[in-house]
Amino acid sequence: MKKVNGYAAKEAGATLEKFQYDLPEIGTEEIDIKVDYCGICHSDLSMINNDWGMSQFPLVPGHEIVGEVAALGKDVKGLKIGDKVGMGWSSGACMHCNQCLDGKQHLCGSSESTIVGRHGGFADFVRGHWSWVIPLPKDLDMAKAGPLFCGGITVFNPIVLSGVKPTDKVGVIGVGGLGHMAIKFLKAWGCEVTAFSSNPNKKEEILKMGAHHVVDSTKPEVLEGIAGTLDFILNTTNVTLDWNSYLTTLAPQGKLHTVGAVLEPMAIPAFSLIMGEKSVGGSPIGSIALTKKMLEFCVRHNIYPTVEEFKMEEVNKAIKHLEDGKARFRIVLKA
Amino acid sequence: MKKVNGYAAKEAGATLEKFQYDLPEIGTEEIDIKVDYCGICHSDLSMINNDWGMSQFPLVPGHEIVGEVAALGKDVKGLKIGDKVGMGWSSGACMHCNQCLDGKQHLCGSSESTIVGRHGGFADFVRGHWSWVIPLPKDLDMAKAGPLFCGGITVFNPIVLSGVKPTDKVGVIGVGGLGHMAIKFLKAWGCEVTAFSSNPNKKEEILKMGAHHVVDSTKPEVLEGIAGTLDFILNTTNVTLDWNSYLTTLAPQGKLHTVGAVLEPMAIPAFSLIMGEKSVGGSPIGSIALTKKMLEFCVRHNIYPTVEEFKMEEVNKAIKHLEDGKARFRIVLKA
Repeated sequence: MKKVNGYAAKEAGATLEKFQYDLPEIGTEEIDIKVDYCGICHSDLSMINNDWGMSQFPLVPGHEIVGEVAALGKDVKGLKIGDKVGMGWSSGACMHCNQCLDGKQHLCGSSESTIVGRHGGFADFVRGHWSWVIPLPKDLDMAKAGPLFCGGITVFNPIVLSGVKPTDKVGVIGVGGLGHMAIKFLKAWGCEVTAFSSNPNKKEEILKMGAHHVVDSTKPEVLEGIAGTLDFILNTTNVTLDWNSYLTTLAPQGKLHTVGAVLEPMAIPAFSLIMGEKSVGGSPIGSIALTKKMLEFCVRHNIYPTVEEFKMEEVNKAIKHLEDGKARFRIVLKA
Repeated sequence: MKKVNGYAAKEAGATLEKFQYDLPEIGTEEIDIKVDYCGICHSDLSMINNDWGMSQFPLVPGHEIVGEVAALGKDVKGLKIGDKVGMGWSSGACMHCNQCLDGKQHLCGSSESTIVGRHGGFADFVRGHWSWVIPLPKDLDMAKAGPLFCGGITVFNPIVLSGVKPTDKVGVIGVGGLGHMAIKFLKAWGCEVTAFSSNPNKKEEILKMGAHHVVDSTKPEVLEGIAGTLDFILNTTNVTLDWNSYLTTLAPQGKLHTVGAVLEPMAIPAFSLIMGEKSVGGSPIGSIALTKKMLEFCVRHNIYPTVEEFKMEEVNKAIKHLEDGKARFRIVLKA
């Protein structure tokens, strides 16, 4: 049995502590990854706080992992010891349900999540099923790549899913860990990008990321001024907004898409959908194939999250930094 | 000036009365249709009652018109005197805005509506712009075709817009004037069709229309029993339902689409959208080209609304029949 050294919350809301656990003998289709870097995602905080009622303690968070293959079972496909890999929210799919067979492993009903009922990447090793252990393309900057495996694919997937075209005018609501990556992707996609931010202090930085316009989302008259112009809006926040105002900014057949898990039901007037053939959708992460395509896209366009690096042993300081809203724009822990 | 003899509401909510009005000299791009048949749509009632605050009185309702070209201006394209034609909710599009140029004339911001600020088809003649006066395919049964031009295209459009495939399992909420046509279309489309009805008395008739399953929509446990199975659900009602229950019946990437103008905002939990990559959309009628394709589809598959015919002079009796919920399933007035 392999000893894993990580950082765990012993109970809901707890500060992380050093934690050692044993990995049982490796399964025939499993891979152990030696962790080099691991991003911190808001979902890690939600899981530490048991916001979704599905956390099991002690809990080792961390699901934006890059590292290298340290061990593998005999039936692992496509990977060998020493390969550079990444793993995100999902750590395994069944590979034989209709969703998996249809290339939508992220919608697999019996997929495993990296930090749900198992231990994640705030540790020296993490285990996953070969399906979701994704080889890194040559030339990918590993120090910045971790956040691509959860936050990155979460905002990349809707661009493809919604059929966003380079000729489109698009909006991104919220410029945090997810939103700032969405802006970079959409800029590289060829779109005209409008960022909706409630923090005017971020404006210069947002323009540097590639946004063409930065809109103060706290001012209703600003939204009215761009009525009917956007083909696609991606919401990356998880707070209740005046959704109809954003529907109004959409052009005919425009799409409002949320990756933010807003708790309160969204109030959507049917008339706003009907008159302009508009729609409201949502999505979690993306498929395995799309994650690989995203990585290639990142290398080709030199797109990375803007990261702040902390040492793994500074994990609690890093979490505090994130909780305080100071992260610019994603934190990565270095093992 | 041509005298038109029709039936008008003189004020909101009024019984229709005989009404004569003058048509000015015909415009260069206009067509006068001699009305043979005109369907009665729920929107006619809404307009008579000024539910949407946009009615002008006296108001001649009627926007599911079939007839023949009786007169035309010198710049009319594609039609000649005597041609059999139909006209629906729209009676003219600008033909030069981005939507019109992109084949989405039904989303034209300056389109004219047949009974908004002008007089409709409960009359011997009605006038429209050539764009929305649509030639009927040979062999179309004119006596039953009227309702296709509003109710029909309203439910046909979402099938195409949402990319419904013959391999899909689909649902239709509400089996009235719109819903019953949706069931017939989706059956011919090759889908497995589930009808959601709150009226068990309609069950045998609904099965005869082509539905494979009829579900009592008043029973929550029945919806739970088909969780995760439907690829597409079309809502044809305009009342507030437990939308999340219907989202739950959708399979991954399933779409809930409303053509019913539900007044209260729809309460849509973001989490339900995100987890299964689901979406909620809406639409009005459909484009000119799609309306023509629908008519060809109807001829090829012998699909017509199930109609009850009244004489034009029985219009008030017919409206009462509709208001009483007795229409099975669409009423057509014969001129």
